[in-house]
Amino acid sequence: MLARAAELPSARDARTVADHDDPPGRDIVIGSGDDAAVIDTAGPTVISVDTAVEGRHFRLDWSAPHQIGARAVVQGAADIAAMGARTTGVVVSIACPPTTLVGTVLDLDAGIVAATHRLGARVLGGDLVAAEQLVVSVTAVGRLDGIAPIVVGGAQVGDELAVSGPLGGCAAGLAVLRAVESGGDRALLDRYARLVEAYRLPDPDLAQGVAAARCGAHALTDISDGLIEELRTLAAASRVRVEIDSDRLPRVGSLAAAARDLDVDLREWTLAGGEDHELLGAFPSGTIPPGWTVIGAVTHSDTSGSVIVDGTAAGALRGWQSFADIEPDGRRR
Amino acid sequence: MLARAAELPSARDARTVADHDDPPGRDIVIGSGDDAAVIDTAGPTVISVDTAVEGRHFRLDWSAPHQIGARAVVQGAADIAAMGARTTGVVVSIACPPTTLVGTVLDLDAGIVAATHRLGARVLGGDLVAAEQLVVSVTAVGRLDGIAPIVVGGAQVGDELAVSGPLGGCAAGLAVLRAVESGGDRALLDRYARLVEAYRLPDPDLAQGVAAARCGAHALTDISDGLIEELRTLAAASRVRVEIDSDRLPRVGSLAAAARDLDVDLREWTLAGGEDHELLGAFPSGTIPPGWTVIGAVTHSDTSGSVIVDGTAAGALRGWQSFADIEPDGRRR
Repeated sequence: MLARAAELPSARDARTVADHDDPPGRDIVIGSGDDAAVIDTAGPTVISVDTAVEGRHFRLDWSAPHQIGARAVVQGAADIAAMGARTTGVVVSIACPPTTLVGTVLDLDAGIVAATHRLGARVLGGDLVAAEQLVVSVTAVGRLDGIAPIVVGGAQVGDELAVSGPLGGCAAGLAVLRAVESGGDRALLDRYARLVEAYRLPDPDLAQGVAAARCGAHALTDISDGLIEELRTLAAASRVRVEIDSDRLPRVGSLAAAARDLDVDLREWTLAGGEDHELLGAFPSGTIPPGWTVIGAVTHSDTSGSVIVDGTAAGALRGWQSFADIEPDGRRR
Repeated sequence: MLARAAELPSARDARTVADHDDPPGRDIVIGSGDDAAVIDTAGPTVISVDTAVEGRHFRLDWSAPHQIGARAVVQGAADIAAMGARTTGVVVSIACPPTTLVGTVLDLDAGIVAATHRLGARVLGGDLVAAEQLVVSVTAVGRLDGIAPIVVGGAQVGDELAVSGPLGGCAAGLAVLRAVESGGDRALLDRYARLVEAYRLPDPDLAQGVAAARCGAHALTDISDGLIEELRTLAAASRVRVEIDSDRLPRVGSLAAAARDLDVDLREWTLAGGEDHELLGAFPSGTIPPGWTVIGAVTHSDTSGSVIVDGTAAGALRGWQSFADIEPDGRRR
């Protein structure tokens, strides 16, 4: 995205943080490098923004800059997928201390570009400014290609609830990093490398958003704040009661072993752990897309919305909350 | 944009920093409140991002939060206007310390909403996260309504150069605030209140972007980094030499008096002062839109691009550069 490292010391706006290596392509009339980008949209355009803050959402000693950049793109693109759309482009704002190494910004940038290209999308422009800490904000735009957007509040009684991929890996990986930092066995890092990588860079198949829409999903959202929080949002917005069975939640093989090693209730990761960015959908019975896992159902109308997990109301479990849970150093309270 | 102050402590993503008071309207299929917004775009969509950082781009003791919010919108919308488009929506990312008063965020938000509505646009969604300092990032999207986008590199030999409104007010207002902070006469604040207000909230007529495009502008950009920087960009991208006469630059009445009072060369403000967000255009001779002021012309082809001010090469004068000029407390070095 950055044209030349030499431009960094005087980086000023979209023209400088410009991806001259990312030329106009399909959907793109004018790429980055001018006052604004121009994208060709023959129909509805989907747009969302996500911001990651050093010390809150990532730490430079736990993740490489290119992973931080790629992760920010995945977060933004997951919101696009959650409407049933495909991501066509991103615009990026990077705020960083003037003492940041140029190599760090270039690596961050490389991660942004690579993750964007992996989605079949383009970097449309950006902004690079000085600040006291590193803040990466990604605005993603996408197309619906003739499909009606899938809102979070469209679930109907009788729908089946399903998720697009394994949950809890990101929270487990973070728990492993924290355990080692607190003096735990460093061998945990090797044993659970798969989980640590899931924390560093979640790898959801975001094409499943379009797949879910094509299968006729009634409601769709991405799991950014923990499954339990997304279920609450879906239930409240749809005015329904949802019931799920935690044993049915898909997870990677090493998750249970890691929970035992770290003495954690597995459900803290699968139900309350956020940032996996897999998709949660409500589907008419029998229309689940291939590869998705049914975890429960929409059972009743309920104007206030409610969530039942394993037969009891999900009261105490909370997912990610930006201001509530996390200390400035990134640890949960 | 924020639905309720009570949601702030657990603010988490677009669903929470959601403008439930800003319903779908013209161009908007789904407003904020879901994973992403959906806008109806019958043709090319223009998109750009701008970020403002506390202590770098604004100070809370110099500007009210609603001014900071409104200013961030104007900055984003100016980039859209600079392509010849009208702004249809914005998505906003606010990062702020957990100790920030809820009233401050609500006031900031009110400024964002008011400025967005003033443009005839909608707030499409947002993200509210915790950080060490206040960072406001606005992504603006807009429509071209059948007009071809106007790039900065399209100026042609023989074009006239014109600007859409007065320059230097923002830089002068900032200079007044700094002078008073350094022990200068507080009466300066009253005497030059118009300039201080220009710094706090620039008021360019951004509809002039569309007007310029309709008049057949060859090149267009907004003056965010100072006229001299924008001229350099335009000249280099267009591979031309541009010549301007500093006496022709439009300015508000009190600017010259303030320059005398503060012992400043007026051109430091009109030529090098940034953030007025008026537009600079290159037009075929005789096609200047009403209300614009001719300041010079495109005189020669020049593959490396060059800028002549008052008959001499503009070498030393520099405009705004995010990393180079400004100390962390917001002062220039």
